[in-house]
Amino acid sequence: MSTTIILTLGIIIALGALGYAFYLYRKVLAFDEGNEKVREISSYIKEGANAFLRSEYKVIYSYIAIATIVIFVGFFYGYDSISGLTSNSNTNVIIEQTEYSALFFALGTSLSFLLGSLFSLAAGFIGMKSATNANSRTATAAEQSGMVKALDVAFKGGSVMGMGVVGFGLLGLLIVISISFALNVDPYEAITYAAGYSLGASSIALFGRVGGGIFTKAADVAADLVGKIEAGIPEDDPRNPAVIADNVGDNVGDVAGMGSDLLESYVSSIIGAATMAALVFTAAERMNGILFVLTIAFAGVFSSIIGSFFVRGKEGKNPFKTLKIGTYVSAGLFIVLAFIANLLFLDTINSELFIDHNDVLMNMKQISFGMAPFISIIIGLAVGVLIGLVSEYYTSSDYKHVKNIAKQSQTGHATNIIAGIATGMESSLIPVLILATGIISSYYFGGLLGVGLAAVGMLSTAGITVSVDAYGPIADNAGGIAEMSGLDKSVRKITDKLDAVGNTTAAIEKGFAIGSAAMTSIALFSAFIRKAGLSAIDIAQPKVIAGLIVGAMLAFFFSSLVIRSVGKAANEMINEVRRQFREMPGILNYTQKPDYKRCVTISTNAALKEMILPAILAIATPITVGFVFGAEVLGGMLAGTLATGIMLAIFMANSGGAWDNAKKLIETGEYGGKGSEAHKASVTGDTVGDPFKDTAGPSIDILIKLMTTISLVFAAAFGMGLI
Amino acid sequence: MSTTIILTLGIIIALGALGYAFYLYRKVLAFDEGNEKVREISSYIKEGANAFLRSEYKVIYSYIAIATIVIFVGFFYGYDSISGLTSNSNTNVIIEQTEYSALFFALGTSLSFLLGSLFSLAAGFIGMKSATNANSRTATAAEQSGMVKALDVAFKGGSVMGMGVVGFGLLGLLIVISISFALNVDPYEAITYAAGYSLGASSIALFGRVGGGIFTKAADVAADLVGKIEAGIPEDDPRNPAVIADNVGDNVGDVAGMGSDLLESYVSSIIGAATMAALVFTAAERMNGILFVLTIAFAGVFSSIIGSFFVRGKEGKNPFKTLKIGTYVSAGLFIVLAFIANLLFLDTINSELFIDHNDVLMNMKQISFGMAPFISIIIGLAVGVLIGLVSEYYTSSDYKHVKNIAKQSQTGHATNIIAGIATGMESSLIPVLILATGIISSYYFGGLLGVGLAAVGMLSTAGITVSVDAYGPIADNAGGIAEMSGLDKSVRKITDKLDAVGNTTAAIEKGFAIGSAAMTSIALFSAFIRKAGLSAIDIAQPKVIAGLIVGAMLAFFFSSLVIRSVGKAANEMINEVRRQFREMPGILNYTQKPDYKRCVTISTNAALKEMILPAILAIATPITVGFVFGAEVLGGMLAGTLATGIMLAIFMANSGGAWDNAKKLIETGEYGGKGSEAHKASVTGDTVGDPFKDTAGPSIDILIKLMTTISLVFAAAFGMGLI
Repeated sequence: MSTTIILTLGIIIALGALGYAFYLYRKVLAFDEGNEKVREISSYIKEGANAFLRSEYKVIYSYIAIATIVIFVGFFYGYDSISGLTSNSNTNVIIEQTEYSALFFALGTSLSFLLGSLFSLAAGFIGMKSATNANSRTATAAEQSGMVKALDVAFKGGSVMGMGVVGFGLLGLLIVISISFALNVDPYEAITYAAGYSLGASSIALFGRVGGGIFTKAADVAADLVGKIEAGIPEDDPRNPAVIADNVGDNVGDVAGMGSDLLESYVSSIIGAATMAALVFTAAERMNGILFVLTIAFAGVFSSIIGSFFVRGKEGKNPFKTLKIGTYVSAGLFIVLAFIANLLFLDTINSELFIDHNDVLMNMKQISFGMAPFISIIIGLAVGVLIGLVSEYYTSSDYKHVKNIAKQSQTGHATNIIAGIATGMESSLIPVLILATGIISSYYFGGLLGVGLAAVGMLSTAGITVSVDAYGPIADNAGGIAEMSGLDKSVRKITDKLDAVGNTTAAIEKGFAIGSAAMTSIALFSAFIRKAGLSAIDIAQPKVIAGLIVGAMLAFFFSSLVIRSVGKAANEMINEVRRQFREMPGILNYTQKPDYKRCVTISTNAALKEMILPAILAIATPITVGFVFGAEVLGGMLAGTLATGIMLAIFMANSGGAWDNAKKLIETGEYGGKGSEAHKASVTGDTVGDPFKDTAGPSIDILIKLMTTISLVFAAAFGMGLI
Repeated sequence: MSTTIILTLGIIIALGALGYAFYLYRKVLAFDEGNEKVREISSYIKEGANAFLRSEYKVIYSYIAIATIVIFVGFFYGYDSISGLTSNSNTNVIIEQTEYSALFFALGTSLSFLLGSLFSLAAGFIGMKSATNANSRTATAAEQSGMVKALDVAFKGGSVMGMGVVGFGLLGLLIVISISFALNVDPYEAITYAAGYSLGASSIALFGRVGGGIFTKAADVAADLVGKIEAGIPEDDPRNPAVIADNVGDNVGDVAGMGSDLLESYVSSIIGAATMAALVFTAAERMNGILFVLTIAFAGVFSSIIGSFFVRGKEGKNPFKTLKIGTYVSAGLFIVLAFIANLLFLDTINSELFIDHNDVLMNMKQISFGMAPFISIIIGLAVGVLIGLVSEYYTSSDYKHVKNIAKQSQTGHATNIIAGIATGMESSLIPVLILATGIISSYYFGGLLGVGLAAVGMLSTAGITVSVDAYGPIADNAGGIAEMSGLDKSVRKITDKLDAVGNTTAAIEKGFAIGSAAMTSIALFSAFIRKAGLSAIDIAQPKVIAGLIVGAMLAFFFSSLVIRSVGKAANEMINEVRRQFREMPGILNYTQKPDYKRCVTISTNAALKEMILPAILAIATPITVGFVFGAEVLGGMLAGTLATGIMLAIFMANSGGAWDNAKKLIETGEYGGKGSEAHKASVTGDTVGDPFKDTAGPSIDILIKLMTTISLVFAAAFGMGLI
């Protein structure tokens, strides 16, 4: 098939997604913004979110500027070693020396990095813009017309980000690849530029998740502890000084942070598979191999857009159903299109070279793969769905684990915590078995490309899953606004119902995020090993084991940094809220207005200060270890972070989710209901779970991929190291 | 040097240690048992501990009987594949086919297993016997003569177990090796029998730690939560129905369970190094290589006995000092003896073959090692001490982390928990860096043997360190007995001082346990790979990565099982204690006696029921994975459990220790003192930490080694598996 036609088609689809996002944004703005009180509260949230993102982005701009320059200079002067074009002649991958100079290489990588960074910021930003406009309108729609219209506004608001994420993600990648191909760059080298693009997206995602996560959870923890427990005022009460910061947090953490996060996941899964394609296909078919991977991605975006048309609420019906229908339609359509794509690329696919690992000399042999890539994609989709369902089982109050945590809350704070930790740890069992089966079977059917394609399959319909996911915090915010502006109790009931659905979809989405992080990392890891000129990484070597345990430690240490940051920031916030209650006694009887701004400022400053160290750790460690100890030790380290990081991510996501829902279960009146000792214990669990599930947990997914991507970009330069 | 002389010397030293233990036990019995009330309380504890161990050992006997028969039958019929004597002809290790039959092989392995199991039980049992006799006598000595004599009794009581552990451990190993050598068994095969011995010790250790840990922590948690928080009575109050179970728990968990645990650590470190010796020396010097490792172990036992003479308390002096002096004398003497041993075995050592991992074909070349083994031993000692010091830094109230947790308790239960978790996670940073440095440097100096010897060096003076460690629970129990039998407050003050020292030494000992588990596992792991006929385990293979993440998951899943068991048992106990307070209102005003027995029974039944599943998981998984998926996937799995398990072990040990001491810090009057909200929050942290630091954490150390030992024993039979 013609390269130009496919790439053009892709750009049209990407622009289509962005256009659709813009159309939806206009639609959202057209809804009624609500009464004066609603608009006032909403404007506080908007201002806070805007102010934080502006401050955060300023810090990030400095990082981008420095990193872009460092990459340019490093790649210019280190051309010979970093490009791997000359030093890697001993690997099996035949790389043709191009006529392009070091300047071109340095410019290409640094500009790709820049593009990835900026598009990631853009995805987060439009998500936040849309969410802060949709929240008040969702509340108003719930008040004026009920559930169906509220669902409509919230889902449209979420879809702006869903479509923005896949649109920006794909567009940037296509720009990098189209220019590379137009300039006749070798496909293998083009993938290096794509990895630069991914590196940009990944590092911004880490900043966004960590920074946004610290912001939102510090406010959330403080609002809960002082407001609910000490002052005894309900959630989202306007008298709580931290309440605006809490609501701002939803928009900068759960929306903007998540947007950058998912753009990163989406992009890196495609690049992981494309890198595999560049490695496993014969030289003649390498470019077609990359195009095949891209075509699969296009099919996913197209399917997501179509699927989103099917989301339509019906009065009296569970909103979860219509969201599910949209997702199913997308997935079904995607499967059909992926099947067709596999058929169209059959010639290319059958030129895939199978890397036989059991042969020490790593010979590749050509075997017929036929429809195997399609099978691998289906495996990926199935793995994502299954892991998501297990997450739901462990975190939904319909099943025994959450019920048990709620029950254990009756015997106090400690038994609530012990039950939650045990549940989170146990919840890694089935997802990991599913994941291992997925890895082995996708490899069995499709070789290394199969593993990469499984990750792409898992995230193929990200357009719609992100929309569904982003809808959650909008509904949550709408509830907060309804409460704070004193709308009728029935409004809150509607938003609560919408929000509850959001919690479940968020749990499922986390399953996808973890599964795809694992699959993508394996693909990137395999690419790293080959680019580093290694034929294998032998775990029996003491130095590799040393790397392995250091990698495992990094996952724990990184988590400790992030959790501690939330704790510190929350502490500061708690003291501030207590101070306001103490010095302004009029707050509690509505005669004085709390100082919302100070709370927002505390969260902002804490987030900006605390997000630097974890990010540096993630970026500097692989580079240092690679240069000092060599590619083998680094490989061990990456494997250690991968293995332990996945466990921590699952543990934290599910224990956090379970604690949250156990508290909600008690609030429905079970085990003593609101105000009981059991309820207090359950609030403790929920509070501990906050930094777990919304800050540390999702950040680890990014950490794993970011470390592997950096290693891949610098792979050829590492060599054997000093030991 | 003559084999006979060395082995005879070893047997004399091992019997000497046992004789010394017996002598100390008689000494302990000669002290005054105390007044009637003390004797009554003490008899309850004795009865409870005896009854539990009897029940526990009954379950374990069934396991031993079944496992011995299974091993016999399996090894008899699977002789050709399991022995590896015929199938492994492709490895570099030259194994001479002996004339001994399958019957001999099966009998040898199963009897070694039986011996390891029984000696492990014996070490735990005498520890418990000694501790339950020393506790009342320590309290009485404190009452009658003060600190010095109390320290004397408690340390003598602890030394019975310390000397028993190394005496039994070494004696059994020497029996296995002496018989093998007397029958002219090839040294390489003799090591297989030794591995069988280690397997017996490891599986009993797992039962002991998990069973004992569940018993003691269920009672501890319940006694704290209902007694301290709900009924408002002090710790160790005789009115608390769970108080006897709590004190029994110290003896069956922290003493008997720890005894089996440390016998296992000690034995497996020697066997790990001896296996390396069998692998890396030339055929002619192989037997001498094993003798060298044994000689190092003898030097350690001898040094420990001498060092223990130097432990003498002085009135008005910190008891920590004299314990330290004893440890230092032992370590110093050991270093001198190890140096001499290295000199004596210089010819053997210089026949060591260096396995060059960077050479894909794994050629071995002979290089001169000289004094390198000695250096590796010193590295091991240093690593152990340094990790111990870091543990102390993170868990002692003298340093900032514990102070911070105490401070965070002021803002409630949740911030206490968050701070403790962050501290525990962070505490993995330095130990892992130390460990990685130790692995790389001991390998650099001494090759694979160096890594094995580092583990031996770390545990060489186990005789004295276990004595110091076992003294802690005796002092703790003495305090309990003093409280319950209404002795003067000054008695409790003395025992509290002794107990506080015990907490610090326990934290340091945990550092040694973790460090040696890692080093030993690496040695056993390397032996496994070679015995399985593999030249390397390539982490770049998707199936190995699948194994890696499954292994990482096992560490989490195992922890969840153990923690949940404690939670369940504690819950049952809480309800029982509440029931007694409710139905027997006379308990609180001393007119009714609580039903201690029922609480002991609840802990006993829970422990016996709940210890089965984790043990089966640890034993069955490696065998299943090995046979179904082959040695490579199993290797990945072992590496995953090793890496993630070490982190969990450190995390749990240190967060648990830090919570415990933060609570104690508040109880001294800081941050509001006893009864304050901060104190309540700190009790929550302490309670969550209980199953962490005393059940799950130490069990994981055993899990890692047990899984690797099983894999090593069956290694030759696994083959490539089904995928």
